[in-house]
Amino acid sequence: MSLVVVGSVAYDGVETPHGKVPRMLGGAATYISLAASYFTPVRIVAVVGDDFAQEDVDLLASRHIDLAGMERVPGGKTFFWAGKYSDDMNDRTTLRTDLNVFADFNPKLPDSYRPEPYLLLGNIQPELQKIVRGQMPHVKLTGGDTMNYWINDFRPQLLETIREWDFLLINDSEARLLSGEYNLRRAAAKIMDMGPRTLVIKRGEYGAILFHPSGHFIAPGYLLDDVFDPTGAGDCFAGGFIGYLAGRGVAPDNGTIDARELRRAVIYGSVMGSFCCEKFGVDRFRTLTSQEIEARYQEFQDCTAF
Amino acid sequence: MSLVVVGSVAYDGVETPHGKVPRMLGGAATYISLAASYFTPVRIVAVVGDDFAQEDVDLLASRHIDLAGMERVPGGKTFFWAGKYSDDMNDRTTLRTDLNVFADFNPKLPDSYRPEPYLLLGNIQPELQKIVRGQMPHVKLTGGDTMNYWINDFRPQLLETIREWDFLLINDSEARLLSGEYNLRRAAAKIMDMGPRTLVIKRGEYGAILFHPSGHFIAPGYLLDDVFDPTGAGDCFAGGFIGYLAGRGVAPDNGTIDARELRRAVIYGSVMGSFCCEKFGVDRFRTLTSQEIEARYQEFQDCTAF
Repeated sequence: MSLVVVGSVAYDGVETPHGKVPRMLGGAATYISLAASYFTPVRIVAVVGDDFAQEDVDLLASRHIDLAGMERVPGGKTFFWAGKYSDDMNDRTTLRTDLNVFADFNPKLPDSYRPEPYLLLGNIQPELQKIVRGQMPHVKLTGGDTMNYWINDFRPQLLETIREWDFLLINDSEARLLSGEYNLRRAAAKIMDMGPRTLVIKRGEYGAILFHPSGHFIAPGYLLDDVFDPTGAGDCFAGGFIGYLAGRGVAPDNGTIDARELRRAVIYGSVMGSFCCEKFGVDRFRTLTSQEIEARYQEFQDCTAF
Repeated sequence: MSLVVVGSVAYDGVETPHGKVPRMLGGAATYISLAASYFTPVRIVAVVGDDFAQEDVDLLASRHIDLAGMERVPGGKTFFWAGKYSDDMNDRTTLRTDLNVFADFNPKLPDSYRPEPYLLLGNIQPELQKIVRGQMPHVKLTGGDTMNYWINDFRPQLLETIREWDFLLINDSEARLLSGEYNLRRAAAKIMDMGPRTLVIKRGEYGAILFHPSGHFIAPGYLLDDVFDPTGAGDCFAGGFIGYLAGRGVAPDNGTIDARELRRAVIYGSVMGSFCCEKFGVDRFRTLTSQEIEARYQEFQDCTAF
């Protein structure tokens, strides 16, 4: 069951207390796709410049990610972002944002992508997210991410867009902003009235909460010995989450997704987010194996059972 | 199996976004004892002034808490603390601290308390904590709490004291301060080398982590619809934790406490902390039943299983 992933492919410059990398592969769609690729075939929709390096194409291709939908703009430059994390890595300062070719990103789905049943819409303009979904007439499960900027300045478009989604993945501050409620239980109830019957609220190092008509599920954050670089952890969570559901062929029944599979998907999301932090950028995915993923899933079992 | 609880009994003035109460029963030993009393008989060691109201004596007595060790100082006034919580209730400002009779608290154990096997030392001067333990020759399980002030200014005395404890209950910032490590996994490893083989790190609304030689256990925070007043929640956690262990007759074997019982104790602690927040001060304990406690324990099961 193939998954279509839409979002940014970028180069990042990142500085954490563990070191500094001036330029490396990044972007939400990159992280989502790499994480999801351990569970299901992935087809990416993105835009890059002609500075996009062959070694980065090769990494994505090594995970069998379909790049037919990755547009390359001649003479253009790939989206570049640079940031620096605080000592405790709970805050980061953006040092530079060069949108480059991403400023005019107009996602085009190759014909080969249109029949696919799974769609993950990374954090881009809500109207573009809506257009992409409209181009996939056979989609069975749609969800995605958004951010404060769209919630504040594109609220009507965002509400119009997520009304059609099966699930929404956002962090706690975004959930509070979107709902106008501080309490997460109340915030979730309001957001689920906006369309998505399933909501995942990410809480960074504290894990994630799944809200579902049948009740909620609280997943812990994995206790890492060292966080090398948290960049992309939230996107890897999304990739593990949707990747697992797609790989299992899970689809909503009467608008509702199976709660047990969703709980497992949240744990696989947490597993992938935790691996992401162990090395800089996407480096962990160069060596990560399915055996390691299963072992960490078991660790989540062991540290939560009572 | 009786539990001896040592700490403050006080009057509190509390303001939260839900209201303001100028004077009500409070204090760490009060909350610990009330929470523990649902699991095991409790004997309290504390000091109050002759302003301590009969209705408050009656509340403690109604939970069968032994008050033989609650010294009443003639002409003295009971410890008074007043504070105001921020809108999100994650911060609080102390408005007033009148130590009164608590300034000279010198815990005296009635002879009837000395043979007891369980001891919970609330947050008081480390040397006093040590003296109390020294007066209980048959104690099987000892643990307690401390705070930043003792960690910073009484470090040698604190280290000397906790060296004899079976478990330590502190929050994340205290664990970082005590260990000098930001990462909680590393912090826990260092603290467990200081004596306590079991460590519980409380993370407020995010729950708690149990560290034990056999591995760690992550308990979520309960998602309340409304937090009326978080005062005493950490102490109620301690009360539920030690109360459950005492009620079950759990004692260390070769210095190590049974890990499965400890996990359940952490959940009962979380259950009691969550109830505490539902009303102002100790009000929730005026009506709370064992059936409600068991139902909430089951809710913790339901929202963590996968």
